[in-house]
Amino acid sequence: MSNVVTAFSRAETTAMDAALEAALRGPRGANPLVGAVVVDPSGRQLVTGYHRGAGTAHAEADAIAQAAAAGLDLRGSTMLVTLEPCNHVGRTGPCAQAIIAAGITDVIYAVDDPHDPAAGGAATLREAGVKVRSGLAAGEALELNRDWFLAVAAKRPFVTLHIAQTLDSRIAADDGTSQWISSPESLADNHGLRARIDAILVGTQTVLVDNPRLTARDASGATAGRQPLRAVMGLRDIPPDAAVRGEDGRVLHLPTRDPREALTLLYAAGVRHLMVEGGSRILSAFLAARLVDELIVYLAPTLLGSGTPALDGLGITTLADAQQWEWDQSDGGSVRTLGRDLKLHLRPQTTQPLEPQPSRSGAETAMGGY
Amino acid sequence: MSNVVTAFSRAETTAMDAALEAALRGPRGANPLVGAVVVDPSGRQLVTGYHRGAGTAHAEADAIAQAAAAGLDLRGSTMLVTLEPCNHVGRTGPCAQAIIAAGITDVIYAVDDPHDPAAGGAATLREAGVKVRSGLAAGEALELNRDWFLAVAAKRPFVTLHIAQTLDSRIAADDGTSQWISSPESLADNHGLRARIDAILVGTQTVLVDNPRLTARDASGATAGRQPLRAVMGLRDIPPDAAVRGEDGRVLHLPTRDPREALTLLYAAGVRHLMVEGGSRILSAFLAARLVDELIVYLAPTLLGSGTPALDGLGITTLADAQQWEWDQSDGGSVRTLGRDLKLHLRPQTTQPLEPQPSRSGAETAMGGY
Repeated sequence: MSNVVTAFSRAETTAMDAALEAALRGPRGANPLVGAVVVDPSGRQLVTGYHRGAGTAHAEADAIAQAAAAGLDLRGSTMLVTLEPCNHVGRTGPCAQAIIAAGITDVIYAVDDPHDPAAGGAATLREAGVKVRSGLAAGEALELNRDWFLAVAAKRPFVTLHIAQTLDSRIAADDGTSQWISSPESLADNHGLRARIDAILVGTQTVLVDNPRLTARDASGATAGRQPLRAVMGLRDIPPDAAVRGEDGRVLHLPTRDPREALTLLYAAGVRHLMVEGGSRILSAFLAARLVDELIVYLAPTLLGSGTPALDGLGITTLADAQQWEWDQSDGGSVRTLGRDLKLHLRPQTTQPLEPQPSRSGAETAMGGY
Repeated sequence: MSNVVTAFSRAETTAMDAALEAALRGPRGANPLVGAVVVDPSGRQLVTGYHRGAGTAHAEADAIAQAAAAGLDLRGSTMLVTLEPCNHVGRTGPCAQAIIAAGITDVIYAVDDPHDPAAGGAATLREAGVKVRSGLAAGEALELNRDWFLAVAAKRPFVTLHIAQTLDSRIAADDGTSQWISSPESLADNHGLRARIDAILVGTQTVLVDNPRLTARDASGATAGRQPLRAVMGLRDIPPDAAVRGEDGRVLHLPTRDPREALTLLYAAGVRHLMVEGGSRILSAFLAARLVDELIVYLAPTLLGSGTPALDGLGITTLADAQQWEWDQSDGGSVRTLGRDLKLHLRPQTTQPLEPQPSRSGAETAMGGY
């Protein structure tokens, strides 16, 4: 923690803890989990915000909007936020400007925005006379979005992989039937996720066998407004009449069996959040390559005893080498009930925590370490 | 519900609902889940009891003991209980006598004790001048212990089967390593269960490969006071030096591959609660025969990708024939955290509810229907 150069008050530390906790309420994905808490000069917490996922207000804007709705005056207050406020005009407007406009005079953030340093809002805030400090709870803030930081650093999409399986981890019966192992509520949850991601990936085998549409649809079967890019990975051709082709041209053939290469191609196509859908060979390839940032298991209370296993080999031969995962508490908790199914939410187990880098805030150092 | 011949008051119905709910706090097993609520003449609920499992006080005795501890006088009150009070002097004394001694003047129970009619306490209560009615919430009470009623009727042990598996339902890696897929907390939970059941069953294959002791042990490895009978099923001999032989002679070889035959032999040996431990062939045989009343899955947040699947076939070839299970809310809920593992608790899905039989209470009809 070499970059913690400022002493923080007890109230500031407590407020940052609250911001970290608030961040967990949001969903994982292409955007990091971020929480923000505003305290008045006496240290009293006025308002708490968090980021509800891509396309919605950032945590800072969320907190400021809540304060406005409650008629709270934030002039002279301090904002504690788990990630450096943004400076860019994206879908939601720059947070640095919103903070300045709200009259907030102090900002304490945990870690630098890992993108291009120019994107960070710290310099903008300082230029406007806001006192900016950073590094408080940097380790916790990195841990909160460990997999997102790593994906950003690697310039690849954040990867969500889901498995819809029986208790005995079968994704299809002996005769190939698989519709539907999951409950209607799980299917709806999955379609809700499809509408939020940038791309959905299957293998050519799945296209040839199941012929899926891969569109995001609501309960009535109607197509959602926002649709993911449909990516098909593998060396075989996509049949001309495959349902995945759709009519909007938003389908991409990735002529590779290497998940890393697939991610490079997808990133180049602008994909920042990918959902790996199946089949078992594709699921296994991404898992074996350790390229999965978020694992969702829809677990139906059923047994098949045989049929297609969810995974067909990870190159592991002995228990000591088993892949370790941990329960992800974000987005409503690690276990949720969806109809008769359980939805399990996991992330890769920390092997070693990310080291906070010297902050570039007020220094020359850039966040090149990731 | 042809046996509901008495009208019950709203207070009585409410109290019976509370008794049904209290019953769920207990663990499943060789004894049924039972709850009891005592109300005063104005209908106010005075005390609630439930059965905490084999060897502990029955729900009625639990409620009466709680009242005594709280200095409550139960004379002139009404007890609502989800199962006919017992009449036998077992490990815990007859409840009928305890009810009479407490001065309770009215008893309403949901369903008859399905054992030998002479075991039921209704007649004893009536002879002592207690007003006895039955049939209130009989359907719910049967459903509460559906699998127990069926096991009693079939004169076979109640069967608990557990699987200790990875997320992808492997119970050993390619090289056979399996110690330990589960967390220490799951292992401790399992040993706690071993100390409460009558017998634990494995196949000869498991004895030959894993050479387990099958004793109930505490965290320090010390042997628990109460030990289950160790049953080994299969046609091959148990090696003379097998650990399962132990030193207490409490080992039983069941020379059969038929789970029904194994259960008949175990019932004859006095076993009323059996835990099926493994391996996958034995687990699959009991599941395929639909002889499992309670399914416990210890789910570790790990992936192996290959290795030994928990099950090796249930004779199911298409999804429509998948075995359906439902989440069991008894004993602390259907999902519990045990260290890093989840413990999932399931029971067979109701295909058709048990029909309440005409009550023998106050009639000639015996409970022969089960």
